Amino acid sequence: MFRPNLPSELLQSVVEEFSSLPGVGKKSALRYALHLLALPKENVERFGNSFIKMRNEIHYCNQCNMISDSEKCEICSDSKRDRGVICVVESIRDVISIENTEQYNGVYHVLGGIISPMDGIGPSDLKIDSLIERAAQEDVKEVFLALSTTMEGETTAFYLYRKLSGLDIKISTIARGVGFGDDLEYTDEVTLGRSVQNRQPFKPSDI
Amino acid sequence: MFRPNLPSELLQSVVEEFSSLPGVGKKSALRYALHLLALPKENVERFGNSFIKMRNEIHYCNQCNMISDSEKCEICSDSKRDRGVICVVESIRDVISIENTEQYNGVYHVLGGIISPMDGIGPSDLKIDSLIERAAQEDVKEVFLALSTTMEGETTAFYLYRKLSGLDIKISTIARGVGFGDDLEYTDEVTLGRSVQNRQPFKPSDI
Repeated sequence: MFRPNLPSELLQSVVEEFSSLPGVGKKSALRYALHLLALPKENVERFGNSFIKMRNEIHYCNQCNMISDSEKCEICSDSKRDRGVICVVESIRDVISIENTEQYNGVYHVLGGIISPMDGIGPSDLKIDSLIERAAQEDVKEVFLALSTTMEGETTAFYLYRKLSGLDIKISTIARGVGFGDDLEYTDEVTLGRSVQNRQPFKPSDI
Repeated sequence: MFRPNLPSELLQSVVEEFSSLPGVGKKSALRYALHLLALPKENVERFGNSFIKMRNEIHYCNQCNMISDSEKCEICSDSKRDRGVICVVESIRDVISIENTEQYNGVYHVLGGIISPMDGIGPSDLKIDSLIERAAQEDVKEVFLALSTTMEGETTAFYLYRKLSGLDIKISTIARGVGFGDDLEYTDEVTLGRSVQNRQPFKPSDI
């Protein structure tokens, strides 16, 4: 256990703030704090104010709940995106990950979490009602559930499937199987077993 | 290369500020930024302001150059510390490390760097004059050079040794050898060779 006796309360409070970030320990926090001490005052002011400004001024898109600098996010405002497909994700981070693949041209719906009875998160804590409303609109043809393949992800997907199944739309989910670049030998049994069951037609373009 | 297309300039600027910290990449920076977004506004305000406050209000001890909340640091103000021994270190972090060992009861002198011609840092860029002044005071009996055992550390130690050698004081340095818990097999040749040359009387209390 690293318990530095810090020589200054000001430094101590900065170390505590940094170590409140996910995955940051006291040692890294001290390193960051001493780094800031060596910077010009203006830089540290810009550093500190950037967080406050972001937290106070950021918007959430009133359609998909994605973060945005205005009331409607860039993706929902983009006329080139296909409004007929809604990709349902757990969090903002998932939108960023899928956007980075450059393989998706529809719109999104951020649930703001995942059904997890263990953490006390039920369907009513998530943006599910607004998803059903959006999915019921005439031009929507497909809802694409891009949730984690964990117990909670599967539970949420199943719940949404039942809620959406009355509508005349396609419900899809992300493909599962052995990852690209993965060694069969090190693939877990469940994934490998399912990938054998669900074998697909060979497409040379996938390689 | 991870280049997220971030959906907000505010988020983008926070990610850039976080990734300016030593060892923080864009992925971690995004994680920290999204963590802050989920916190109450007051917490983020306290977070951001802690850095600005520290940078603007921190003092450096006018004797040893250690950071402090007042003009004279806690260690220099402590009447129980031995003012006869001055431990010379490169940085604030080294003071914290040595203090954590609870094995030293003298005072410190922070050089604020180390002689490194490659980085353009010469003796005049460091707090060496004030060290010589302090070491010349009547009550000082020992100057203890606790510098890194790197080329730059050795150069600085040698420079200080020459500057101090006219004074009637003891000049010591940290012990070198095989670290506690280290495997001989994995100890580098230079360290092992010197540790054989400089073998010490066996003291059961060291184990």
